[in-house]
Amino acid sequence: MSNEAILFEGDYLRLRRRGTWEYAERVNARGAVVIVAVTPDNELLLVEQPRAPMGGPVLELPAGLVGDIQGEENEDMAVAAGRELEEETGYRAARFEFLTAGPPSAGLAGEVLSFYRAIELTRVGAGGGDETEEITVYAVPLGEIEPWLQDKRDAGVWVDPKIYTGLYFIQRDQG
Amino acid sequence: MSNEAILFEGDYLRLRRRGTWEYAERVNARGAVVIVAVTPDNELLLVEQPRAPMGGPVLELPAGLVGDIQGEENEDMAVAAGRELEEETGYRAARFEFLTAGPPSAGLAGEVLSFYRAIELTRVGAGGGDETEEITVYAVPLGEIEPWLQDKRDAGVWVDPKIYTGLYFIQRDQG
Repeated sequence: MSNEAILFEGDYLRLRRRGTWEYAERVNARGAVVIVAVTPDNELLLVEQPRAPMGGPVLELPAGLVGDIQGEENEDMAVAAGRELEEETGYRAARFEFLTAGPPSAGLAGEVLSFYRAIELTRVGAGGGDETEEITVYAVPLGEIEPWLQDKRDAGVWVDPKIYTGLYFIQRDQG
Repeated sequence: MSNEAILFEGDYLRLRRRGTWEYAERVNARGAVVIVAVTPDNELLLVEQPRAPMGGPVLELPAGLVGDIQGEENEDMAVAAGRELEEETGYRAARFEFLTAGPPSAGLAGEVLSFYRAIELTRVGAGGGDETEEITVYAVPLGEIEPWLQDKRDAGVWVDPKIYTGLYFIQRDQG
């Protein structure tokens, strides 16, 4: 695995080669946080937004890059989780519990996602992301989550499989 | 989202830009299948292999690219699932049930993963992948999966969060 090269350096992504293996990595972030947030009414918070790589809308758990803000490159993961949750969904959490961390696309990219559970949510705003984002927030009753996701699929929205990663931890801990 | 450009064309990955958004896509595959396979002894099949983008070993569900074999670009997803499961783990399934499909890294890449459940497994070989792969196969009792994954982490092995996507479907359907 020696013989490393940078094949291309973009504004946001870098393409690297290690041996004969090509992979992507972010230029401007240390990683990303993904947030599993259930409201006091037992609803899962999900966000839908147009994603350029998919050419259309994708439904995902709230998430965001860590360390991509100038001057805050050493931002704590849980701090980033709080910022992203509030920006995207308008909910604030009393605290965050670490769930798991790992690479979701280890063949393609070096990116590591850290999953956190948001605890004691209160609504403090409308959400929707910052001025560069077009995010729609949903609070989906957990008892209806599967048919709700299917309706989204039928309407042409992609469903990120990491939503089920979040549902695993919810299901496990709610019994 | 017009204004598209190819920024770099590698042997396996292509870096694209749509508007100002940069993303990666595979040159030689239509997608990938991920396989949730539980043996008759209630063990989950997992594979561990060195992953160049991570610089070390990663534990994952069995998976593989679809349409990356010359002359078989239109390979059916379930056929690819059968091939990859047998190559990587040495188990053969009587059939495959579709679970979900979607982009696990929609901000970074256009790749879509299709998850299948392998049904009625029988062992037909040793697994371990093809001659280019260094795969270790594990059959992990479902009742011990969480501490087992933690032991792996403690030993420096990355754990792909998609393993929990698989565990969601297992837990849901086993009650």
